[in-house]
Amino acid sequence: MDRILRVNMTDRTAAFEPLPEKYKHRAGRWLTSSIVHDEVPATCHPLGPNNKVVFSPGIVTGTSSPTSSRISVGGKSPLTGGIKEANAGTGWGRRLAVLGIRAIVVEGRPKDDGFWLLKVTKDDASFEPADAWTGKRLSEVYPDVFAEHGGLDSVDVCSIGVAGEHRMAAAGVCFNDQEGRPNRYAGRGGLGAVLGSKGLKFIVVDDGKADGVEIADEELFDEGRKKLAAALTEHAITKPKGALNTYGTAVLVNIINEAGALPTNNFRSGRFDGAAKIAGEAIFEGNKERTGGELYNHPCSPGCVICCSNTWHREDGTEHTSCIEYESAWALGANCRIDDLDQVAELNQLCNEYGLDTIEIGGAIAVAMEGGVAPFGDGARAIELVHEIGEATPLGRILGGGALTTGRTFGVARVPHVKGQNMPAYEPRAIKGIGMTYAVSTMGADHTSGYTIAPEILGVSGKLDPLNPDKAELARTFQYATAFIDSTGHCLFIAFAILDIASGFEGMIDECNGVLGTEWTADDVARIGKEILELERDFNRRAGFTELDDRLPEFMTYEPLPPHDVVWDVADSEIDKVFSGQA
Amino acid sequence: MDRILRVNMTDRTAAFEPLPEKYKHRAGRWLTSSIVHDEVPATCHPLGPNNKVVFSPGIVTGTSSPTSSRISVGGKSPLTGGIKEANAGTGWGRRLAVLGIRAIVVEGRPKDDGFWLLKVTKDDASFEPADAWTGKRLSEVYPDVFAEHGGLDSVDVCSIGVAGEHRMAAAGVCFNDQEGRPNRYAGRGGLGAVLGSKGLKFIVVDDGKADGVEIADEELFDEGRKKLAAALTEHAITKPKGALNTYGTAVLVNIINEAGALPTNNFRSGRFDGAAKIAGEAIFEGNKERTGGELYNHPCSPGCVICCSNTWHREDGTEHTSCIEYESAWALGANCRIDDLDQVAELNQLCNEYGLDTIEIGGAIAVAMEGGVAPFGDGARAIELVHEIGEATPLGRILGGGALTTGRTFGVARVPHVKGQNMPAYEPRAIKGIGMTYAVSTMGADHTSGYTIAPEILGVSGKLDPLNPDKAELARTFQYATAFIDSTGHCLFIAFAILDIASGFEGMIDECNGVLGTEWTADDVARIGKEILELERDFNRRAGFTELDDRLPEFMTYEPLPPHDVVWDVADSEIDKVFSGQA
Repeated sequence: MDRILRVNMTDRTAAFEPLPEKYKHRAGRWLTSSIVHDEVPATCHPLGPNNKVVFSPGIVTGTSSPTSSRISVGGKSPLTGGIKEANAGTGWGRRLAVLGIRAIVVEGRPKDDGFWLLKVTKDDASFEPADAWTGKRLSEVYPDVFAEHGGLDSVDVCSIGVAGEHRMAAAGVCFNDQEGRPNRYAGRGGLGAVLGSKGLKFIVVDDGKADGVEIADEELFDEGRKKLAAALTEHAITKPKGALNTYGTAVLVNIINEAGALPTNNFRSGRFDGAAKIAGEAIFEGNKERTGGELYNHPCSPGCVICCSNTWHREDGTEHTSCIEYESAWALGANCRIDDLDQVAELNQLCNEYGLDTIEIGGAIAVAMEGGVAPFGDGARAIELVHEIGEATPLGRILGGGALTTGRTFGVARVPHVKGQNMPAYEPRAIKGIGMTYAVSTMGADHTSGYTIAPEILGVSGKLDPLNPDKAELARTFQYATAFIDSTGHCLFIAFAILDIASGFEGMIDECNGVLGTEWTADDVARIGKEILELERDFNRRAGFTELDDRLPEFMTYEPLPPHDVVWDVADSEIDKVFSGQA
Repeated sequence: MDRILRVNMTDRTAAFEPLPEKYKHRAGRWLTSSIVHDEVPATCHPLGPNNKVVFSPGIVTGTSSPTSSRISVGGKSPLTGGIKEANAGTGWGRRLAVLGIRAIVVEGRPKDDGFWLLKVTKDDASFEPADAWTGKRLSEVYPDVFAEHGGLDSVDVCSIGVAGEHRMAAAGVCFNDQEGRPNRYAGRGGLGAVLGSKGLKFIVVDDGKADGVEIADEELFDEGRKKLAAALTEHAITKPKGALNTYGTAVLVNIINEAGALPTNNFRSGRFDGAAKIAGEAIFEGNKERTGGELYNHPCSPGCVICCSNTWHREDGTEHTSCIEYESAWALGANCRIDDLDQVAELNQLCNEYGLDTIEIGGAIAVAMEGGVAPFGDGARAIELVHEIGEATPLGRILGGGALTTGRTFGVARVPHVKGQNMPAYEPRAIKGIGMTYAVSTMGADHTSGYTIAPEILGVSGKLDPLNPDKAELARTFQYATAFIDSTGHCLFIAFAILDIASGFEGMIDECNGVLGTEWTADDVARIGKEILELERDFNRRAGFTELDDRLPEFMTYEPLPPHDVVWDVADSEIDKVFSGQA
């Protein structure tokens, strides 16, 4: 009995609808991108009444499948002006899934400036005023919201922070982790600002009396689930006490720095002399020193067997923040030349408190440093800058508008973005395949849309030369596979295992077939991935994007990057091959 | 002996080159747009080393032709990301013309942050440090610059203000008027920021020992000049003590308000109850009261017979500012709901002092008011806001970035812009032809690219219903004719006369044929205008623009405008007919 919950913020109504037949196999990114494609006028203003925010748990979310609690969030991005899908790991999507709610569609825009809490239960969706909870740090308000709605056993909470309330384009959508911390973000592209424009501050989901996820073929599902779990617990990157469980995603800091591809000082160098001080190894060792024990990482969401979410502790042993991801350690560290883990942790925590995408904010601070607002490396000043965002001062609003707005405001031409979204932690001049992914991604510069780092640097699914520009096919196949994974509800990190271990890949497909009663094969993974990309690309075309938007910023073509002293030299015609099928 | 002066700011060199044969008949906008089209990579960053700023006087500039001292300035716009041509009336272009300098091309970008003065004489172009003149009001530094370079008899001065120094996208390019005031602006599109990015603060032109403009057929030229002068001195709008000479361009305030098309409160209404208090009539009467005499207006540049440039005087009779154009009275007045002429005058003067486009700044303040920065109508606060721009505070930088950046930063969806440039003083919902011009103009929302107000409101060249959407042909033919006029060096205001008086139109063509030795007819006016538009449209296409950029903002399609309660209801297909030749 799958259904959609349609929420209209113009008149504050909410009603369940049956899931349309055409969407019956769609969930996660496939469904959010489908609804955005089908319902949102591509040329609408992202903060106007005609944009929508769509939430959808994945195909296997809510089942016993491992590492499958991702929630997909879609809409038109105020940062890029194109379609946006961002996802996060949290129990919130599981609760939707077991309630048979395949999607929540938030639309309209109120006449006044009030903020609201939407409470979703099995048979009801109702509003409560939320103004009393605005203007505050999320860690201040989450405990109260949980307390008023039955606690962590009964509900999970989706929200926006002050950045979203102020409709800043770097505002993410926040979900709680398993301990109720407001720290799991569908961070990129400013969908928090879209919720802010609609006056929706919280969505609380209570799954009491839920019927659970319907499974068409229990046996097949179970077989697939086991094959996938086996692959995850076997692969060196994803296994218990493996790379991710021990050092978190920040295990990449030293690896990418060694490759000469860790963007430093706003993408002026690919190597950071302070890298080791902010790396996953430093987090692990620092925690050991400060807490007296070896802290292996914890799951961000129910049912995850990878368990890569870390904590960072103060000198007195108390918890400072969770989690310092690789992207955050880089964005708030190396990219701003900050090598003090306590400062990086504070910046990270403030982003969680104010509801911000750490990548975009690190990028904005680095561009502001480039523009003379602060010296590179001044962590204390960077912390003040993030507080300015939390206070919505003019400077804070500039930074909260993201790196490109910061560059425009300070007259800085060196903004490392694609389609208005700041680049993540991999230098495209030094790793050509990820550069092609940045260029063509429907999302703007985004590593998660096709993580070619796996073969280009990590030796997962083969080993490719990062400086070889012949990566069009790689960028295409990775994006198709990713779009499918993003639809299953699995975390993208299962890719490390299933790209190397064939039975894991089969297990993922078996699980989906088990739930849906389909008979998909590996070909369907590519077919569905391609279909999703085509929906997204069609939206972007209708929003005004052309192949000229599939380009890296000009400065990378004439400014050589140390230490390899390479420029971005991939021909435009090569980039255009990614989706033309000519490569 | 026509030539081009090529200035490279990377290594601070300047050299004369012969005018290429292909450009031999091109001047003004035709030449600046040609050089930008041919030399500037369309996808370059506007503030990067590959953008250029091109200056060119018109075909008849520097001759005895009336009202012909316009200087055209071109480049890629940091405001729109497309091609930009802005022009101003000043003696500066005349001096270039009589020196046989058909264009100055400024290119490159220095490694350091210093600012420079370029001195151009008959045989030389050399640099002097200008850092001592940065960070100041232009009226403070102009007298010194004149004094050091021989005074107003010898030189005219082009410059940027602090807004340009800080590379703000609303920074214009300033020229002096006949009294040496820094107040004649090629204002729109941020070309001042481009000069700022190149470290070029001043260009001083000394035309000592100039040979004058070569005229191929003196007799024909003279005949044309006389026919044009006769038309200008005869037409009710352009004649001595006519509408423009008496009330200035601000004569339009009451007329457009009466038509329900004076954008008020950031385009929330087409009628302003305070309109009469900021109108040209109020300026004339106020000056009479304060100075004791009837002040008819003065020429902004040598040889103008229309003489529409006004002054505004303080209560004690001293001069406060010159000139309060219609666009400025509206942008800094009605659009911000400010109806105090002294406050409008102060805002106007501050824009002149800091080097700002009044239209864009009025738009930015109105959007900021919409975003809660100040109440509509608070003139005192608006004055403080413009001072913030002059001080380059974060809030000042936001506003100096223009209305769209202000909207992005404050999360405001109601930004009345096209291609990132704020709309001028005519509500497109109430006057459909000007809306089509805004939509398709290569410049972003720009009334001067095709002033259809003439027939739609003023009854010049016929009288059309402003609410009739069938204006594709009008928008096209007006843009073609305008592009030609912008190439002659004539002020666009000659159009009032020559559209109604056929001999004036012939006179304009005769003059050009007289100077160039060509045999152009009225057909050539349209042919050349079309060619210019095609160059500009080709640049914009290569910069990434599509027909989806030829659209008015979404809110105008669903928000009815009082008093006519009309929305923007012109079909996209009608807009696309403007240049498809289907209408």
